[in-house]
Amino acid sequence: MARQSHRFLATAALVYLTSGPAAPSLSAQPVESIAGRYRAAADRIIAAALGDSSAYERLTQLVDQFGHRFSGSENLELALDWILAEMERDGLENVRGEPVMVPRWVRGAESVELLEPRHKNLPMLGLGGSIATPHGGITAELLVVESFAELTERAAEARGRIVLFNAPWDGYGPTVQYRGRGAIAAAQVGAVASLIRSVTPFSMNTPHTGAMSYSDEVERIPHAAITAEDAALLMRLQQAGERLVVHLEMEAQTLPDVESRNAVAEIVGSERPDEIVVLGGHIDSWDVGQGAMDDGGGCVAAWEAVKLLKRLNLRPRRTVRVVLWTNEENGLRGGTAYRDAHRDELDNHILAIESDAGVFEPTGFGFSGSEAALEMVREIATLLVPVGTVTVSRGGGGADIGPIMREDVPGMGLQVDGTCYFWYHHTEADTIDKLDPREMALCVAAMAVMSYVVADMDERLPRD
Amino acid sequence: MARQSHRFLATAALVYLTSGPAAPSLSAQPVESIAGRYRAAADRIIAAALGDSSAYERLTQLVDQFGHRFSGSENLELALDWILAEMERDGLENVRGEPVMVPRWVRGAESVELLEPRHKNLPMLGLGGSIATPHGGITAELLVVESFAELTERAAEARGRIVLFNAPWDGYGPTVQYRGRGAIAAAQVGAVASLIRSVTPFSMNTPHTGAMSYSDEVERIPHAAITAEDAALLMRLQQAGERLVVHLEMEAQTLPDVESRNAVAEIVGSERPDEIVVLGGHIDSWDVGQGAMDDGGGCVAAWEAVKLLKRLNLRPRRTVRVVLWTNEENGLRGGTAYRDAHRDELDNHILAIESDAGVFEPTGFGFSGSEAALEMVREIATLLVPVGTVTVSRGGGGADIGPIMREDVPGMGLQVDGTCYFWYHHTEADTIDKLDPREMALCVAAMAVMSYVVADMDERLPRD
Repeated sequence: MARQSHRFLATAALVYLTSGPAAPSLSAQPVESIAGRYRAAADRIIAAALGDSSAYERLTQLVDQFGHRFSGSENLELALDWILAEMERDGLENVRGEPVMVPRWVRGAESVELLEPRHKNLPMLGLGGSIATPHGGITAELLVVESFAELTERAAEARGRIVLFNAPWDGYGPTVQYRGRGAIAAAQVGAVASLIRSVTPFSMNTPHTGAMSYSDEVERIPHAAITAEDAALLMRLQQAGERLVVHLEMEAQTLPDVESRNAVAEIVGSERPDEIVVLGGHIDSWDVGQGAMDDGGGCVAAWEAVKLLKRLNLRPRRTVRVVLWTNEENGLRGGTAYRDAHRDELDNHILAIESDAGVFEPTGFGFSGSEAALEMVREIATLLVPVGTVTVSRGGGGADIGPIMREDVPGMGLQVDGTCYFWYHHTEADTIDKLDPREMALCVAAMAVMSYVVADMDERLPRD
Repeated sequence: MARQSHRFLATAALVYLTSGPAAPSLSAQPVESIAGRYRAAADRIIAAALGDSSAYERLTQLVDQFGHRFSGSENLELALDWILAEMERDGLENVRGEPVMVPRWVRGAESVELLEPRHKNLPMLGLGGSIATPHGGITAELLVVESFAELTERAAEARGRIVLFNAPWDGYGPTVQYRGRGAIAAAQVGAVASLIRSVTPFSMNTPHTGAMSYSDEVERIPHAAITAEDAALLMRLQQAGERLVVHLEMEAQTLPDVESRNAVAEIVGSERPDEIVVLGGHIDSWDVGQGAMDDGGGCVAAWEAVKLLKRLNLRPRRTVRVVLWTNEENGLRGGTAYRDAHRDELDNHILAIESDAGVFEPTGFGFSGSEAALEMVREIATLLVPVGTVTVSRGGGGADIGPIMREDVPGMGLQVDGTCYFWYHHTEADTIDKLDPREMALCVAAMAVMSYVVADMDERLPRD
């Protein structure tokens, strides 16, 4: 399907390039003229981005050399050292690591076993921030429910038990509630630990980790994810009238915060260096897989977009800044620290673009900002017909740019084909082989064109 | 896609049923008349098979209650006890377990770790029949090759090393050679152990087990499968010039053979009880997952097909016999023992049908037998237009019926949509949730119609 769609886009691009105006019309209206003025530059950027696999190769190097990059881990800091050195080698400017204190949660040994009605090992991942079980683990009867509502109905049965939320996949937003709030809800009815069905539409016996919360109002209990297959099995066994007994053991610890960094590099603007277009992703990952999709790919796509401008000698009038934020996954400390460190500059942050949906085939952008700005970025997006990312929908951004978006910085998220994103999300299967060099190059092209034009055009992207 | 295709088939069936002859024509040619004579019975069978989810429910009960069913395991024998009791309850005739001595390979603890250039646990499954490593394991440099040919070229580098065959998926037949013969080829060039990329087109960090061979000509060395992701990673690291060191530990043991059983049940033929149509699958599985797809589904589909005839009071003139063969996966002892125990009957085995490709949406049958018989079964298959299994291609059968096919029994294999079969094959992800109740019911219908008509029709399916 991806290949067919590329063919279609190539044809569409051809039609577009041959049927469009031969040269920018000086008499055109200002808003229309953006696309006209930047068509040549955009075509150069796109051709260069698609001319090699350098983004994919760099991502491969990153994830193969350092593996996953969890907050507080040595891997993450070694990867950041390498990234900063590479950014220098790329000839980027003002390369630096901006310090950020990040939490350090360490998984330790962990396991879940079904003891009755028959023995079965249940593959699992503790959820980030969970407390440990007592030494020797917890053995308890299991209560399986499908929703918070069902737990409320069956509250009397939950006391002293381990609760399993076998919530069916209903899209990420609704389903992730059980990962986020499951331990609180289970503790409220007296459960001794809580488990969830992994938050995913598809499973190959694959546990998915992710962030979770506690409340100061109720006891903290261990919280972990098992596979969709096993959650369904346990529900069927309960429905068949079986008494289920499980043993949960987790050694998870929260250690003192440690220092990490946001990696930052720039092409300083030629005319308005204080006005900034920032783009990036988060360099931290969960402590499983390679964090290739989430979000090594987004980081390298943004980084390569800026490197591409440098290589093409396209220095925009405003500053283009790439930021690889740290600690998105279990704290958002990188995005918050960026806001705090750059508070004085935020009025001059023209646009913030994040890529954190995987670098699959791009489909467009989501934009949060003024109507007038939305019209402008839609005009710019027409330059991306050859890449296919022509749609700019209202709403969108990213977790790392959330803190500055709340300070009125216009925000934008790269949108991509999301078919398989949640298959791999926060699992051992988030590895480089799930990505495609050409799709990633298309993402680089989209990020580079959008950031370059917004940074270079006469018009300052208007806020409300 | 499956749903759409069902709609199409329903429409096709309607056209077929309304535009066909109103009643069987007595003047029609004999070969054409089979479909006419059996249309009403076939439609009854199909309607009954699609009228409930009993096959899927029975399979769920089997796999949830007993889990995987590896040769030599208690699970397998407990499952067989339950199956034989259920077959009696179904009212089937001559229900019995026919004894078969089977190998008993026990996996034990096992692991592979990458030690250099950085530590990484490599999920793995030892291959069935492999020897153990020495106590404490083997630590050695790794040599990654992509083919037997490359190993031959690099033979000088293999001595004292662990060889990894990172053979890309090229279809099951070619790729499984590395699982089957990898340990022999690696030992021939002096390797101390061998690993393979799991035999699969798709991976979620999923190791796949399966059978392997040794040769008496060369030393036996441990042989195991790692994931496609890790095999690719190790190859990339080798290409990047890294020295790779891995530690392999396996406690696998081959214990003395133990007794298992082929489960057999019949509807005895009303006129020619000595003539037999046999259908079935293999009840053993690998020691991972639930063996739901491979081949619990095939077993239950055949069993339910025969139960359906019983329920509809469709006693054919010949005997219909369901056999759930044991030990297909790592020995084929069930199929061989069946041949030996029934040698005197083989001339009267009219047809043998196996379902061992998963009970996904059926697409047809493969048939191995005479041209005249192929024409007849093609005629019968036209009765399956409502089910979609109208194609009968030349060639086909199954592993368990292979031994009797080599004694000239005509053989047939149920063919199904194979898109995902090798995703789950021999893995922890071969679980009931991968199957669909309606698709499984379609398989039951196809097996029931084909076996009933062949067992009942005037014509004896001709051999060459």
